[in-house]
Amino acid sequence: MSGYFITFEGGEGAGKSTQAQLLKEKLQKDNIDVLLTREPGGTTGAEAIRKLLLFGNCDFSLKAEILAHFTARCDHVDQVIKPALQQGKIVLCDRFIDSTLAYQGYGLGKENPDILEFIQKLSNLIDLIPNLTLIFDAPYETLIERCLKRQTKIDAYEQLGYDFHYRVLNGFQLIAKNNKNRCKVIKAHKLLHEVTREVYNLVTHKLSESRYIKNNDSKTR
Amino acid sequence: MSGYFITFEGGEGAGKSTQAQLLKEKLQKDNIDVLLTREPGGTTGAEAIRKLLLFGNCDFSLKAEILAHFTARCDHVDQVIKPALQQGKIVLCDRFIDSTLAYQGYGLGKENPDILEFIQKLSNLIDLIPNLTLIFDAPYETLIERCLKRQTKIDAYEQLGYDFHYRVLNGFQLIAKNNKNRCKVIKAHKLLHEVTREVYNLVTHKLSESRYIKNNDSKTR
Repeated sequence: MSGYFITFEGGEGAGKSTQAQLLKEKLQKDNIDVLLTREPGGTTGAEAIRKLLLFGNCDFSLKAEILAHFTARCDHVDQVIKPALQQGKIVLCDRFIDSTLAYQGYGLGKENPDILEFIQKLSNLIDLIPNLTLIFDAPYETLIERCLKRQTKIDAYEQLGYDFHYRVLNGFQLIAKNNKNRCKVIKAHKLLHEVTREVYNLVTHKLSESRYIKNNDSKTR
Repeated sequence: MSGYFITFEGGEGAGKSTQAQLLKEKLQKDNIDVLLTREPGGTTGAEAIRKLLLFGNCDFSLKAEILAHFTARCDHVDQVIKPALQQGKIVLCDRFIDSTLAYQGYGLGKENPDILEFIQKLSNLIDLIPNLTLIFDAPYETLIERCLKRQTKIDAYEQLGYDFHYRVLNGFQLIAKNNKNRCKVIKAHKLLHEVTREVYNLVTHKLSESRYIKNNDSKTR
């Protein structure tokens, strides 16, 4: 595939979605063809699954919940992400497989090896590894504070307790540690524009390395 | 697990659901603890997925559709079927993995080896093989005639065309042929009470063989 696939990962309130939007705008100013999308969602079917997962009170078994995430993901990959990559676009995706690993594998599953293996086997079936994953990390207190300031409806994951969110954040750190080539940790408690600049510099550097854009393109701004 | 798991499979209008209900009643008269359930469905989450699949116009990619069926199945297995089997019950399930193989693998997927392998890998993740599968088979004309007589809302699969349903029926026949120990074909175009008797005799014979019930229990009726 000729495109470049970047995923934005991290706990609630880490600023992923904001930074993904800002990166999209900066890349578009560079005349780069970029698609910003999010999980779970991105297609009619995936949005329907998203609603069930976040607000449906379905009370799925943990493995069924994981399968529901992979249903939405698979639809999104098949109908949106892979076609965009085949067209040579840069795809920015707000959450991907690492979120399932962190939330269901480390958070709800408490590192149960059976659950981690279940997620790994489903990941193999999806068969799409990001070129770059940005993991937004911040002290837990910072994240909670940001979450509480939000006016939006609290979803099923946001309402889980401290221990759960601690395991999730710990999970993201382990994922970053175990996938150093693919994952870069972004310290998200800094000032917004500092984080934005760091993300932009990192991404344009990676795109240059991958020859997606010429070296000069990223240096002009 | 100490229970016994029987699945009812076949094309639309083959009489599976009616026969599953009649078998349940006959086994209950024998004082056998039996649970009748159906796919996709059987739990709150699985019923929600069922609605999306049959009436949601979600237009999932084929792999996402398969994953949605396995999401519902997994929830149903984890929360209903496995607990009932662990309690020693006979579980009768209207549709199971073979329906995904027949409808998505043979029907929609047209025997694409990639799709058949995808279904096989998901089946392995579910990790529950029926003790006995009854495949209800009838000439296609008989099935269509029965479908047309139905007054219920036509679902997404029922409205697909002749070629699709032909491939599905052919798929069920191949599944029966490839799994002779587990699958028994029931000729479903006979008179209702004849089919009911055949199903009952077959099931009680199998239960005797598996020592689930003593030989005498099944011979007294």
